[in-house]
Amino acid sequence: MDDPYFSSISFKNILKAKLFDVEEVTFVKQNGEKYVHHIARRMPTVTVIPLTPENEIIFISQYRYLFKKNNLELVAGFIDKNETPLKAAKRELKEETGITASQWEQLLVADMNASVMVSQNTIFLAKGLETGEPKPDKDEIITTCRLKIDDALQKVFTGQITTTESIIGVLLVETLLKNRIV
Amino acid sequence: MDDPYFSSISFKNILKAKLFDVEEVTFVKQNGEKYVHHIARRMPTVTVIPLTPENEIIFISQYRYLFKKNNLELVAGFIDKNETPLKAAKRELKEETGITASQWEQLLVADMNASVMVSQNTIFLAKGLETGEPKPDKDEIITTCRLKIDDALQKVFTGQITTTESIIGVLLVETLLKNRIV
Repeated sequence: MDDPYFSSISFKNILKAKLFDVEEVTFVKQNGEKYVHHIARRMPTVTVIPLTPENEIIFISQYRYLFKKNNLELVAGFIDKNETPLKAAKRELKEETGITASQWEQLLVADMNASVMVSQNTIFLAKGLETGEPKPDKDEIITTCRLKIDDALQKVFTGQITTTESIIGVLLVETLLKNRIV
Repeated sequence: MDDPYFSSISFKNILKAKLFDVEEVTFVKQNGEKYVHHIARRMPTVTVIPLTPENEIIFISQYRYLFKKNNLELVAGFIDKNETPLKAAKRELKEETGITASQWEQLLVADMNASVMVSQNTIFLAKGLETGEPKPDKDEIITTCRLKIDDALQKVFTGQITTTESIIGVLLVETLLKNRIV
């Protein structure tokens, strides 16, 4: 656990918020100089890119009070305790859209906001889709929407798809398809 | 400011951390039901993708104590008060790499961690690059590194480039070049 720049780094929880913790980080440099920083630590999350045989991506539209509008996004959610990322991805896809998938591929693990937040997001491609009955959380109002890759890309470039994990998902599928990897 | 789902939403600051604030959000639903949530609110940021005429992206490598390693990333930083995103992008590029650029294009505005964090990241493409003397912050130890798009993509898919804004940057340039947009 040696650090090349600091003689010690210590973390102290200063706030337990609902979906994240805030920690005070105290650094002591090799010369004894000390300074303090803060980070937010969040449970890890998953994002799912459900892809149809016609190369359409299935999005969800859900109300986001921070944006005061229905937001077009990929299925995403927290990984519960004792759950693998894959199990969480399957659960979230089923809950939010009713869809089950027979083929799963982990594409990436992304670090969100690395400078002030510890939050890992594992991104899955889901194929072999079968529709079913969604079971959203009590306060989630979710509809689904299929978009061809080009239409999804267009929405990224015109600011209609704005969340980082959704942007990454669309660009990933575009890149994988263009390079004939999927 | 009417909200279709809640009769009131109020925000109360409960923590001023160094690079973000934490707010308690109280929702009152139309039926009087009340519940509480938390968000972290961060200053907006910029990310810069410096692209050479040979279609190489210039990355920085800097030590991240949260990862305990030197991390390969795009230039990024906070937008200072009274600064436009473009001005911040130019300043950060100059400070961290010494590079100035004659052509700037805003590609996207991304919402980071929309569910628990309010944090907008504006992503710029910078071309017409000229090298100069970097002026990093006191505690930043930064080196630069040029990568061809294919090598950068490879590093995204093998987990050597992991921060969300850097992943988006690489995939954006790949997509724009493949579609002959830049």
